[in-house]
Order: sequence, then structure tokens, then C-alpha cells
Amino acid sequence: MKDISRNLTMLVDYYELTMGHGYFRSGKKDQIAYFDLFFRKNPDNGGYAIAAGLEQIVEYVKTLHFTDADIAYLRSKGCFGEDFLAYLSDFRFTGDIWAVPEGTVVFPGEPLLTVRAPAIEAQFIETYLLMIINHQSLIATKASRLVRAAKGRAISEFGSRRAQGADAAILGARAAYIGGISNTACAIADEAFGVPAGGTMAHSWIQMFDSEYEAFRTYCELYPNNATLLVDTYNVLESGVPNAIRAFREVLLPRGIRTCGVRIDSGDIAYLSNKIRKMLDDAGLTECRIVASNSLDEYIIRGLLHQGASVDAFGVGERLITAKSDPVFGGVYKLCAVEDEAGNILPKIKLSENVGKITTPHFKKVYRLYGRDTHKAEADLICVYDETVDDTKPLEIFDPENTWKTKVMENFEAKELLVPIFQNGEQVYELPTIEQIRAHCRDSLAATWDEVKRFENPHNYYVDLSQRLWDLKYGMIKKQRKQ
Amino acid sequence: MKDISRNLTMLVDYYELTMGHGYFRSGKKDQIAYFDLFFRKNPDNGGYAIAAGLEQIVEYVKTLHFTDADIAYLRSKGCFGEDFLAYLSDFRFTGDIWAVPEGTVVFPGEPLLTVRAPAIEAQFIETYLLMIINHQSLIATKASRLVRAAKGRAISEFGSRRAQGADAAILGARAAYIGGISNTACAIADEAFGVPAGGTMAHSWIQMFDSEYEAFRTYCELYPNNATLLVDTYNVLESGVPNAIRAFREVLLPRGIRTCGVRIDSGDIAYLSNKIRKMLDDAGLTECRIVASNSLDEYIIRGLLHQGASVDAFGVGERLITAKSDPVFGGVYKLCAVEDEAGNILPKIKLSENVGKITTPHFKKVYRLYGRDTHKAEADLICVYDETVDDTKPLEIFDPENTWKTKVMENFEAKELLVPIFQNGEQVYELPTIEQIRAHCRDSLAATWDEVKRFENPHNYYVDLSQRLWDLKYGMIKKQRKQ
Repeated sequence: MKDISRNLTMLVDYYELTMGHGYFRSGKKDQIAYFDLFFRKNPDNGGYAIAAGLEQIVEYVKTLHFTDADIAYLRSKGCFGEDFLAYLSDFRFTGDIWAVPEGTVVFPGEPLLTVRAPAIEAQFIETYLLMIINHQSLIATKASRLVRAAKGRAISEFGSRRAQGADAAILGARAAYIGGISNTACAIADEAFGVPAGGTMAHSWIQMFDSEYEAFRTYCELYPNNATLLVDTYNVLESGVPNAIRAFREVLLPRGIRTCGVRIDSGDIAYLSNKIRKMLDDAGLTECRIVASNSLDEYIIRGLLHQGASVDAFGVGERLITAKSDPVFGGVYKLCAVEDEAGNILPKIKLSENVGKITTPHFKKVYRLYGRDTHKAEADLICVYDETVDDTKPLEIFDPENTWKTKVMENFEAKELLVPIFQNGEQVYELPTIEQIRAHCRDSLAATWDEVKRFENPHNYYVDLSQRLWDLKYGMIKKQRKQ
Repeated sequence: MKDISRNLTMLVDYYELTMGHGYFRSGKKDQIAYFDLFFRKNPDNGGYAIAAGLEQIVEYVKTLHFTDADIAYLRSKGCFGEDFLAYLSDFRFTGDIWAVPEGTVVFPGEPLLTVRAPAIEAQFIETYLLMIINHQSLIATKASRLVRAAKGRAISEFGSRRAQGADAAILGARAAYIGGISNTACAIADEAFGVPAGGTMAHSWIQMFDSEYEAFRTYCELYPNNATLLVDTYNVLESGVPNAIRAFREVLLPRGIRTCGVRIDSGDIAYLSNKIRKMLDDAGLTECRIVASNSLDEYIIRGLLHQGASVDAFGVGERLITAKSDPVFGGVYKLCAVEDEAGNILPKIKLSENVGKITTPHFKKVYRLYGRDTHKAEADLICVYDETVDDTKPLEIFDPENTWKTKVMENFEAKELLVPIFQNGEQVYELPTIEQIRAHCRDSLAATWDEVKRFENPHNYYVDLSQRLWDLKYGMIKKQRKQ
């Protein structure tokens, strides 16, 4: 696999450095702190999200260090002491990280990742961790929506040219593949991450020849086993499809090749695709696939299929690679506890006038509760780190905001959602392959009720707190309000 | 400056490779082709855009080459011949590029960049050129809108954690600085591109101390010359501002330091900022600045100032770094001419049912026409490459869609918009510094009428065709329609 990584230790909000210097200066740098990375709202008003980006976080954490040039730059800013700069030149991550595996269906309010580390280290990695998780989870989630809209038809990712920079193109293709798209146009995403890449022709190919037919015939002769011809350069029904049919019949059929394709990138896809289907079938090209592209998203795809469009595969560009309809995944990274000198964990909370923005304190773990008969995820339960759920007994859970809404879980299996990634700065997690991640995403979606996955008014999946954690949180809120 | 570049030759849509192989195989690879890069619609229904990204394009074109690993990857795909792979291993860009300098105000329909090169080379660079120009122009344009809304107040770019990958964060900060923001939180954008970086504290800083006051005091002692305190961790008016005032008076005033700041990141900014202003003024801290952040964009900033909010500077995160309200800059790259073996330029056109999508054929140049008395740009005129505009004589221009709308330009100066960047593969353009680019953007905006820059229903800036180019274009449309 091609290595496209760079040392991006300095991709950090400047305040992580001023705060780090402050912790260093005020004797707090080695105080153990706990931070949770979580999000508050599903993209596109959907019912779920897909976690992605952990592989890039592992790579970042492992290679975290300041070069001499970085130290020289920081010195030039004139606000950091030499002792701090000397400390930074040996800076490494020495703490612990737990995270949800990539491809897992996740919900607002639960930790996707928890860091336990000396305060200066836990604080420093905030910016990069958020950026990676926010970006890839955004795109993986969008991809899973597109795949759902397409009802089994393949989705190709076509967006590199409209991506917000190189990593948006490359890691966006990676995240989209995790979320379920079939392949990408982005060659380097294949070379670096194994996302299958493919592609055939642009309008310029056809314009470079004296005729559309000559362009098609040349292409079929060159790539008889992968001939998807772009038929909308001049006129789809009058010129493009007849020329494609002629090229297929003259070049492919004599060689016994019946699999081929046409692509339309403009016009009324519902209308044109049905006309094209009839023309192809009448010509005996029943195995010729019709591919559609042109500013598609999950709603347009759903609408096309609802109208009975004869489309076998979709190419999706800018609206996937930028998640155009909702291009921000709002993950945050919040302090939830510190340890005192004796190693006692002291929970921390951040209040807000907006109840949804109040953080859940303490070092926590998350269980996902699966019905043993339904094989579906029924609820997630956030507990204090040293609680365990005994899934051999009935368990009463309750809505943390409307506590009278209770439910007794029976015949369920409780699985921990977060797994150890780093311990004392050492990677303890074996990174899965991209195919394993993609399969895990498929399984995680299959274990999610359809009601949670629908686009409009999805069912609100339960993310509950254990009684002990609820008591702690609301006790802290009351205490701080009194002060 | 830190070098954060990578060889991204393989960041290419796969079809550029299949077409390139096709040109190679069908004897067309060295036919000279001309491509224009242009866009069709201003972001956010605005009246203009800011071109950005040229520096990264220069770097890309100069370093374009396939590594042995890239060739091995392509071989593994099984669809490229060994002679083509051998050719690719020596592949370099040998053609010409003209482009609009970064920071220039640009309009739909005019070339921002023109490539003249052997077809295989001109085709190959499409994906990367579009990605870079689309991304950075998007962010520079958004930044210029924010700066305009803030009416002289500083805008800080805070968005790294919500950026769509590392390049979106880093080059996004660069583009935002070109567009007029004052500084960034992204340290590496400073180290690599000289975008001034700064920052002070997050809520976690305050939570790490036993009291808000202690956190503020510690910060002021450490950074007396750059103390902007975040006052909304507990309660802005009851706790945050009183504690900040106490810290300023106890730590800064005795040292004769009067410049300081407070930041609010939640709540009703209009209401809070005016209350805070009064509290600060009453405490004699008239030079203390108030900074506001929290999901701001140009419309919210305009609204806050319209309501009389006492805000001196704004921090803008996700809505700038992703251009959230319209996150796609729709630049396209279209074949406009080829050369025959004798070197004659043969114009090419791409028709469409949608008149706005019909391309303008031929190798072209663009003049910007400035009023000699107004010092404002009055119109752009696209001409055939060998036309010249004589600005010592009156010139009649006309709207290319409504040709009866004519205007006689007098007392004007005509300046060519695109400048040579590469000739025969050699860079002939000296890259300006980021400060020069930013100043050029400021000048270019100053030469643009306010009517073009307003957010709602902006004046439609004229981008006209010369009579000769118009005749050519509409002649070609008629001819192709007849076929």
C-alpha cells in the first residue's frame, strides 16, 4: 500500500499549545485527565451515524513528535519558555485510548473515543482526533444513506475534483467505502487504501475524435471487458445510444462479450434511462448496464427509483465527497474527569443553559444491548467505568431526560462498544483491513432496526445512562447550580 | 517554511488514465489540446468569487511523476500495456499554463486557467487542478464574505477540527487568509504558509483548575500580553466576566497592560456582548476586546452588528472551513480546442440542452476593463487568443445572451486577466508571497463595485464575448444543431 502520510503533529489549534505550556508551567501537565469524543446530532436529521477514521488516529498518535523545525517555529512565536520547548522535543503520547471500531453504527451522546493521559498530552491531540473522526464519520454516514437509497444498486464515488483538498478526496473515498459504496474514481485511494478504483471516459474523449462512433469503437476495442460509454455528449437518444449500440454490436458481441454499459451525466434521468433500456433491449443488449450521474444524492436516487428509472448503478460526486446537504459532523472533545495524586478519579462536568450541551461526567464505558431473538441493537447503556452489566438477568433501563420512560430488557446480550486501542502509549489494537471494516459496518447496520435508519423522522435510538451514572450527573448539576 | 507537500500524482480520476492510455494507443497522445478551467455559478448566490490555489498547482505540475510503486500498482490493474507504463514512468508536464493570479476577483464563465499541452498531459492534470482551485476558491470567497459582513472587525479562522481532512484545514486556512481573515487557530498553516496563528484557551483549561478565577489569573500571569479569557464555562455575567475583570485588574493593570480580551462561545451574543461591554467599561477596562464565536457565518455576523452587538472580533469555525451554506465550488475543465498537424487551432464546443452549460470554444484570453475615472472593474471581455483590445478608442460590448444589451466603453483601461505560469513545462511565473496575494485580493475587491459584492441580488457583472468569439461560438452551435 502506498504511504501517503505526513507528520502532522503541528496540525493543532494554537490554544492546545498555549494551554499545554500553561499546564507545564503550573504543575498540571502530568495530572491524569480523561476526555470523551462524542457528537450531539446525527447528520441530515438521520437516526444514526457511522464511526470512521480510527486507523488515521492510530497512525497520528504513534508518530506524534515535534521536529527541530517545529520547535524553531514555536520559539519564533516568543511566548514559550525554553524548558517547555525542550520538553516538547521529547513529546510522545504515553496514555490510554479506547474507541469504537471503525464502521460501527453510533449515536449522539455516547463516547466514540475516550482518552486517559497526562493532561498536556490528552489536551494536545484534541484538534487532530476531532478533525479525523468528524470528517470520516461524516462521509461514511452519508455513503451509508446513499447505499440505502439505491436498494442494492452499486454507488461509485466520483467526487475528487470537488473535494475540499487532497485528504478530503482520498480519505473521503476510504470513508465512503467503509459506508458501503462499491468503488471510487480516485486512483490513489485504491493504491493507498485498497478502495477499488475504476473509470472509463469523459466528454473530452469523445470530442477528441472526429465522430462519437469512432470514439466509442476505439474505446471498445481497447477495453472490451470494461466498456461503459458516456452517451450524452451530443444527443443521448438520437446519437449517443445508437452509436453505443453499434459499437457494442460490432466490437463486443463478435467476441462473445455481453456485459457493457452506458452512462448518462445530464438530462432527465428517469425519462432517458427507460428510453435507453428499451433501445438496448431491442438491440439484444439486455446485459448492458445503465449508469447515471449528475449531482445526485440519496433523495434524488430514491426519487428516481420510485419513478421506475432503469438505472443499474449510480455515480455520486460532490454531494457525497462534501456531504453537501449537511457538511459538518459536530464531534466535540470534552474533559470528563481528572485523577488526584492518590489516583482517585474525580468526575468533571460542563454545564450549559442548553440541557443538550451539558456533558456526562466521569470515566465511562458503553454497552450495546442486543435482543437475543431479534439480533438487533435495542439500546446503548452508558455506565461508570467499573460497572458491569449482567445480561443473564432482566435489566431496567430508562430515558435520561424523561426518566419515567422505563423498559425492562430481557433475553439480551450486552457487548462493550469501545475497545482498547493504546495502553501506556503502546498500540494494543490490531487494525482491521478495509474489507473487514466494511463488513463490520454492514453487520452493524444489519443489527440496526430499519425504523432507526429511515430518512424522515427516524426512531430515536435509546442511549441511556446507568442509574449510578445518572445519579452522579444530576447530583453534580444540582451542586454546581447551588454554588 | 515547513514543507507539507507529498507527491500526489496518483490523486487522479481513474478515467484520466484509461483515456490517457487510449490517446497513447490511438496515436492522439501528442495532439495539442486546449482546456479551460472555469466555473458557472458564484457560491452562496453571490456576485463574485476569489480565485485561489495556484501555488499548489504550480507545485503539483512541477513535481508530477509516477514512482515505481505507482507503475506497479497500475500494472496490477491489468488493463494498461507495458509500453504505456514505460511511457508513464518518464511522464512529465511539458505544456503551457496561463492562470488568473491568486486573490483575483473572478466571475462565472471566464477561464481562471487555460492549459495548452499534448492531449494526454492536459487531460491527466484535470482532477488535481479542479480539486485545488475548487477548494481554495470556495474558502477564499467565503472568507471575503465574512470579512465584508464584519465591517473592519477581525475574523479568526477556528475550523480545523471540523475541516474535511488535513488539507482542508491547512489550505483552507491559507485560502481564508487570502480572502481577508486576520489569523487562524491552525498552527501548521502558520508554519507552512505564514498565516498568523494564535489562540488562548478552551473550557477544559478552566475546568482543570479549582476555580475559574484561578484559571484566569494563572493565564494572565503566563501571557500578560495576550490574555483573552473564555468567560462562558459557568455563567458569563455572574461568574465569567467578574472573574476576568478581577484577574485583569490584579495581574495586568499593575503592569500597565490595558489590552486584553474576553471570548464568549455560547448564549445570546447580542445581549451578552452589550452587558459585558458595560461591565468592562465600568471597571475601567475600555480597551478590553470582546470576541464572539459559536457557529457564526456572514449572515449571523451581519445580524449581530445590525442589532448593535458590542463585538470587536469574531471567531468562525465550521461554517468557514467547510463553506457550510454552499460547500461546493463547481469549477469544470473543458476541452476548447485542438491543433492539427500543421499547428492550426481547431475550436471545440460541447453542446447541452441547458444553454448555460454550452462551452465557449477556442483558445482565448480575457481582458478586464477598468474605468479610468472610477478605478473600478466595469466588465470582462473574453476574446480569441490573437485579438487585442485597443483601450485608447471607444469599445462597444454586448451581453452574449441578450445581444441587444450593448454598452460603449470609453476612457477605460484594458488589462489581461490571465498571466503565463508554465511555458513548455517550465515555470515562468514567480509565486507571490501570501501577503502579496492577500493585498492583491484586497485591491481586486476594492476595484469591484459594492453592488456586485452585496449578499442579496447582487448586480450581475458583465462577462462578454468579443464579436469575433461570439460569431464563432454561435456559428458552431448552429452547425452542430444541423448535423
